[in-house]
Amino acid sequence: MTNPLLLPELREMLAENDVEGMQEFCTTLHPARAADFAEGLGVQEIWRILDHAEPERRAEIFHYFEPEKQVEIIETIDLDLISPLVADLAPDDRVDILKDVDKAVVDELVPRLPADERRDFVRLRAYPEGTAGAVMTTDFARLSDDMTVSQALDEVRKQAKEKETIYYVFVVDQEDHLQGLVSLRQLVLADSDQQIENVMKRGLVTVSVTDDQEDVARKLARFDFLAIPVVDDEDRLAGIVTHDDVIDVVIEEATEDAHRIGAVEPLREGYLQTSLYTLTWKRLAWLVLFFLGALITALVMREHEPPSVVLVWFMLFVPLVISSGGNSGNQSASLIITALTTGDITRRDWSRVVVRELIMGLLLGGVLALLGFFSSWLIVAEMVPNPAVTALVVGSTILLVVLCGTLTGSILPLVFHRLGWDPALMSNAFVACIIDIVGIVIYLYVASLLLG
Amino acid sequence: MTNPLLLPELREMLAENDVEGMQEFCTTLHPARAADFAEGLGVQEIWRILDHAEPERRAEIFHYFEPEKQVEIIETIDLDLISPLVADLAPDDRVDILKDVDKAVVDELVPRLPADERRDFVRLRAYPEGTAGAVMTTDFARLSDDMTVSQALDEVRKQAKEKETIYYVFVVDQEDHLQGLVSLRQLVLADSDQQIENVMKRGLVTVSVTDDQEDVARKLARFDFLAIPVVDDEDRLAGIVTHDDVIDVVIEEATEDAHRIGAVEPLREGYLQTSLYTLTWKRLAWLVLFFLGALITALVMREHEPPSVVLVWFMLFVPLVISSGGNSGNQSASLIITALTTGDITRRDWSRVVVRELIMGLLLGGVLALLGFFSSWLIVAEMVPNPAVTALVVGSTILLVVLCGTLTGSILPLVFHRLGWDPALMSNAFVACIIDIVGIVIYLYVASLLLG
Repeated sequence: MTNPLLLPELREMLAENDVEGMQEFCTTLHPARAADFAEGLGVQEIWRILDHAEPERRAEIFHYFEPEKQVEIIETIDLDLISPLVADLAPDDRVDILKDVDKAVVDELVPRLPADERRDFVRLRAYPEGTAGAVMTTDFARLSDDMTVSQALDEVRKQAKEKETIYYVFVVDQEDHLQGLVSLRQLVLADSDQQIENVMKRGLVTVSVTDDQEDVARKLARFDFLAIPVVDDEDRLAGIVTHDDVIDVVIEEATEDAHRIGAVEPLREGYLQTSLYTLTWKRLAWLVLFFLGALITALVMREHEPPSVVLVWFMLFVPLVISSGGNSGNQSASLIITALTTGDITRRDWSRVVVRELIMGLLLGGVLALLGFFSSWLIVAEMVPNPAVTALVVGSTILLVVLCGTLTGSILPLVFHRLGWDPALMSNAFVACIIDIVGIVIYLYVASLLLG
Repeated sequence: MTNPLLLPELREMLAENDVEGMQEFCTTLHPARAADFAEGLGVQEIWRILDHAEPERRAEIFHYFEPEKQVEIIETIDLDLISPLVADLAPDDRVDILKDVDKAVVDELVPRLPADERRDFVRLRAYPEGTAGAVMTTDFARLSDDMTVSQALDEVRKQAKEKETIYYVFVVDQEDHLQGLVSLRQLVLADSDQQIENVMKRGLVTVSVTDDQEDVARKLARFDFLAIPVVDDEDRLAGIVTHDDVIDVVIEEATEDAHRIGAVEPLREGYLQTSLYTLTWKRLAWLVLFFLGALITALVMREHEPPSVVLVWFMLFVPLVISSGGNSGNQSASLIITALTTGDITRRDWSRVVVRELIMGLLLGGVLALLGFFSSWLIVAEMVPNPAVTALVVGSTILLVVLCGTLTGSILPLVFHRLGWDPALMSNAFVACIIDIVGIVIYLYVASLLLG
C-alpha cells in the first residue's frame, strides 16, 4: 500500500546522496513500512536506496513491495546485482514472483542462483498454483531424534539465520520421513539433558503437497498451528506452510469467492492495479453469457405472449416476480457457498440442506405471496374488471418462484462442489438468470391456467 | 466439526467405565481432534470423559467444541465442577462463550472464579463486539527492560505455563506502558548477559482497544506478526491479539461480508446450527424491503404505461434491460467492496474509482448495447413495422442502464464506507432493486423520446 508521506524526504536523500539517511531508513522501520514509503519511487531510485541495506534486510523490504513493483525491479536492474537479492528471498515467495517475470529474464537469472536455491526453485515451480506445494516454504528447521534438548537448541541456533521460523522444529529420520515436532517453547522449558524423542509430539496433522491450499488453511486454522508440515507422496517432509501464508491464502480465497459471486473472473492483482483492458475481459465474458440468458427470457415471452386483455397488468409485475425469486435464490446461494467454504457443511449434509431450503422457500415464499396478493390487488383495482384473479395469479406465482429460487440457489452450489468446481461460480447473476427464465415461464403458465 | 467415527468406542469406554481408555483419549489426540470425536456425545457423557483429563488439557479440549455445545455444557454441569474449567480458559475465549450462556448461570459462575480471572472477565466484557479489546487476550508474557537475556529467559520459563504465547515477550515499564518487544527467537540467539533494552525492538506497530477487529487483522497480516499489542487510551499495554485469533477474525468477516452481499443478515452460528426461525427473520427483512422496491417499479410502469402499439415488444425486453444493468452493477459493487475490505482502495482513490467505472460502464455498456441492438432487431423483425426503431430504443437503453449500474455499484459502497457503514450492506439485491426502478424509467423515457 503506497504511502507518499516520506517521498519528498527520500527524493532529497537521493539527490544529496545521503548514505547515512538511506541506511537509517532501511534499518529503523519495519520492512513493510519501508516498502510502503518507497513504493512511490521509480525502480532505479528504489534500487539506489536498497543498495544501502544489508543483503538480508534488502530481501525483507523487497518482500513487502507490491507484486508488480517486484517484477519491474527484477526485469530492470542488472541481473548480477539482482540475483543475490532473489537468492535471499523465501523459496515460496521466489517462485511466486518469478512466475510473473519475463521468461527470458528468468532463464538468465536462475543459473546465477546458488545450487541449493536453484534446485528448490525448479522443484517448487513444478507444483500447480493453489496447492500446498506451491505455498509451502522449504526453509524449515529440522533435527534428528537422537539429540538431547541442549544439543537441539545449539543446532536450532545454528540453523536460525536462514529459516523462516524456528518456533516449530521438525524431527526427521535419515530419509526425511517426519517423526515429530518440538516447539521452541518445549525446548526452552524442557530439561537440557532430556532426549528429543521423549519431548517431541508425534502423530502430527499433516497435509500433502497436492492438497488444495484452502484445505491447508482450514486445517491450520482449526488446530491453531503456527505452521503445518507438508509431506510428499513418499511421506517425506517436503516443506511447511506457515501461519502468515495461511492468512494470505484465506484473504485471497475470500476475495476470489466474492468476485466469482459478483460474476467477475478473479483478478490476479488489486482493483486499481488491474488494467481497464483486463478488467473489461474479466467482466464482459460473464455479462455476455447472462445477456444471452436474458434473450431466452425475451424469446419465451414472445412465443407465449399472454392475451392482450391481461398484457398490461401482466407486464407490471414481471420485475416483482423475477426479483423475488432472484433475491431469495441469492440468499440461499450465499449461505450455502460460505458454509461449503468454511467447511460448515459437507457432502453428507446434502439432504438436510435441501429440506431446510424447501421449508425456507415455503415460509419466505408464503409471506411474499401474501404481500404480493394484496399489493397487486390494490395496484390493478381500477385497471381490470376482476382484480382478485390478478392478485391470485401474482401471489401464487411468487410462492412458486421463491420456492424455485431457494432450491436452485442451494442445490446448484452443492452440485458444483460435488463436481469439484468452485461453488462460488454459482454467482448471483447466474441464479438471477435462471430464475428470470423459469420465473417468466411459471408466471405465464399460472396466468393461462387461472385465466382459462 | 462433529466426527462420528469413534462414537461407538467412546460409548463402550463409558459403559465399561474404562478409565485408562478415557485418559488416553484425552491425552494422545490433538485437543481439536478429541473435541471433534466427542462432539456427538451427550453433555453428561462428554463431562464424564473430560473428567479424566488434567485440568489444563480439559480446558484445551473444551476450547475446540462448537459454541453451542460449550454453552450447553456450562449450563448443564454443576457450577462447582465447571468453574475451574472456565477459570482455565483463555480470557478472550471465556468472554466469548459466556456471552451466550444464560445470564443467571453467569451471575452465579463469575463469583466462583479466582480474583484475577474475575477482574479480567469484567474488563474484557466491557469492550463492544468486533473491537480489538473484545478479541485480545490478557495472557501475554511481560518483562521489564532492566534484565539480562538469561534473567529474561528464566522469567519467561516461569510465566510460560499460563501464557497463550511466549514467542513474543512484551517489555513494559512500571505503569505498563509498552517499551518494546523481544521474541523468543531473539532471546535464544542473543548472548545471555546482554541487556534486554539492547536486544528489544522499539517503535512497535500497535492497535488501540477500540480499533475495529478488521483493522487489527489487516495490520497483523500486512506485517506477518505472530501477535500484535493492544494499548488502552492511556497507552498502557492492555492485551495482545494472536495470529490464530486473526485467522478466525478474517474468516468470520469474510463470511459476514458474503452474507451481507447476498442480502442475508450475518448469522452468529453455522448454517446448519441456525434455527429455521432465526434464518427466516435474517432473510425475510431484506426480502420484504426489496419487495417494496419492486412494487415501486410496478407503480412506475402503471403510471407511465407505453402506448399499446409498442406494449408487446416493450415488455419482451424488460428482463433483458434490467438484468444487464443489475449484473454490471453487481460486478462493480463486488470489486469495490472487496477492494475496500482488503484495504486495496481507500478514500483518496474515490475519484480514480469513479472514472474507471465510468469508462467500464461505457465499454461494457457499448458492447452489450450493440448485442442488444442486433438481437432485438431480429426478435421483433416480424412483429413491428419498423424494427430499427425498436432496436435503437433497446440498444440505447442498455448503454444508459449499464452505465447507471457501474456508477451506482461503485459509488454507493464508497458512500457507505465514508459514512462508517459496512460497504457490504450494498448487497447485490440492493443494486438490482435500484437498477430495476431506474432501468424501467430510462427504458420508458428512451422509448417515448424515440417514438415521438
